[in-house]
Amino acid sequence: MVMAYEKYYNKIEEKIGTDRFNHCIRVAEKSIYLANIYGVDEEKAEIAGMFHDCCKYKDEEILIKKASKYKILEPYLWSGYRKVLHAKLGAVIAKEKYSIEDEDILNAIYYHTTGRACMSKLEKIVFLADITESSRTYDGVEILRKLEVESLDLAMREALSQSLVKLVGNRAFIAEDTISAYNYYLIRW
Amino acid sequence: MVMAYEKYYNKIEEKIGTDRFNHCIRVAEKSIYLANIYGVDEEKAEIAGMFHDCCKYKDEEILIKKASKYKILEPYLWSGYRKVLHAKLGAVIAKEKYSIEDEDILNAIYYHTTGRACMSKLEKIVFLADITESSRTYDGVEILRKLEVESLDLAMREALSQSLVKLVGNRAFIAEDTISAYNYYLIRW
Repeated sequence: MVMAYEKYYNKIEEKIGTDRFNHCIRVAEKSIYLANIYGVDEEKAEIAGMFHDCCKYKDEEILIKKASKYKILEPYLWSGYRKVLHAKLGAVIAKEKYSIEDEDILNAIYYHTTGRACMSKLEKIVFLADITESSRTYDGVEILRKLEVESLDLAMREALSQSLVKLVGNRAFIAEDTISAYNYYLIRW
Repeated sequence: MVMAYEKYYNKIEEKIGTDRFNHCIRVAEKSIYLANIYGVDEEKAEIAGMFHDCCKYKDEEILIKKASKYKILEPYLWSGYRKVLHAKLGAVIAKEKYSIEDEDILNAIYYHTTGRACMSKLEKIVFLADITESSRTYDGVEILRKLEVESLDLAMREALSQSLVKLVGNRAFIAEDTISAYNYYLIRW
């Protein structure tokens, strides 16, 4: 446990709810596991995992208001990109309120829903840990669990492919970063 | 038949082959049909349909060489975007070699594989005619044929959704314009 940040956990749990906070714990655990495989700093992985959803508030109105206050994305994008917004705001709040300065951790929070081209190992680890932590049960999770311990890039390619098909099926907006990431990881393994 | 451009048809047929040239005729027919529904100039629809694949050469090496000559896309994008390249080059060649000056027609050729946000009626018509002309038989074509006579925007939304799922399934690159178009037509009907 990284003691320096533990003091914020109660506050985060209160804001995002116990279920989601427990998800954060599982993402941190999975991130540590992957960090050890790929030679990434274990503490960074734990912090990024614990804080990745720090702004996924129970009350979505708070998310919208805070995103406005911190000038995150343009208002016309909110309705389409609401699922992305907590990550963008999360990186800002993690820095401003929770004193996280490490840029790699902040980027791992910022890109954990969209991905991007040329992600750091830590970014990939948190992205993947979020969707493969132990409680996930959707179709396709097993192939991701198999791939993520073999190759982060190959797992990213599969994860982004799965994600795009789901987004289209749900008639959901697709962030440009997600397409950049998809195109990038098509040829990076 | 728009006589001014007929003189180029033999040349195009020679370059792209008889099968693909017959596809162009069917796309022109379908484009005219849709143009009449939506109050678009019939001659423009015919020309755009006839010329949309004017650079889909039988010999792909010629495509690559010409794309290089005309500085279409960066070389590192060629392998990924080869399916897009003939459209980009097509718009250039249609202007330079076949004397087509109308910007709406040139854009209809340019964007007929990727789409883009905020397409003109003619652009949407050629995009849709290309994938719903009478010989097309893939799963999903009937819903597109039904939608395209009701609403071009709704048909675009469905067409782009189908296209994205196919591209991901084929592990193919996705152009940023395609995502812009997909996001745009999600909310434009």
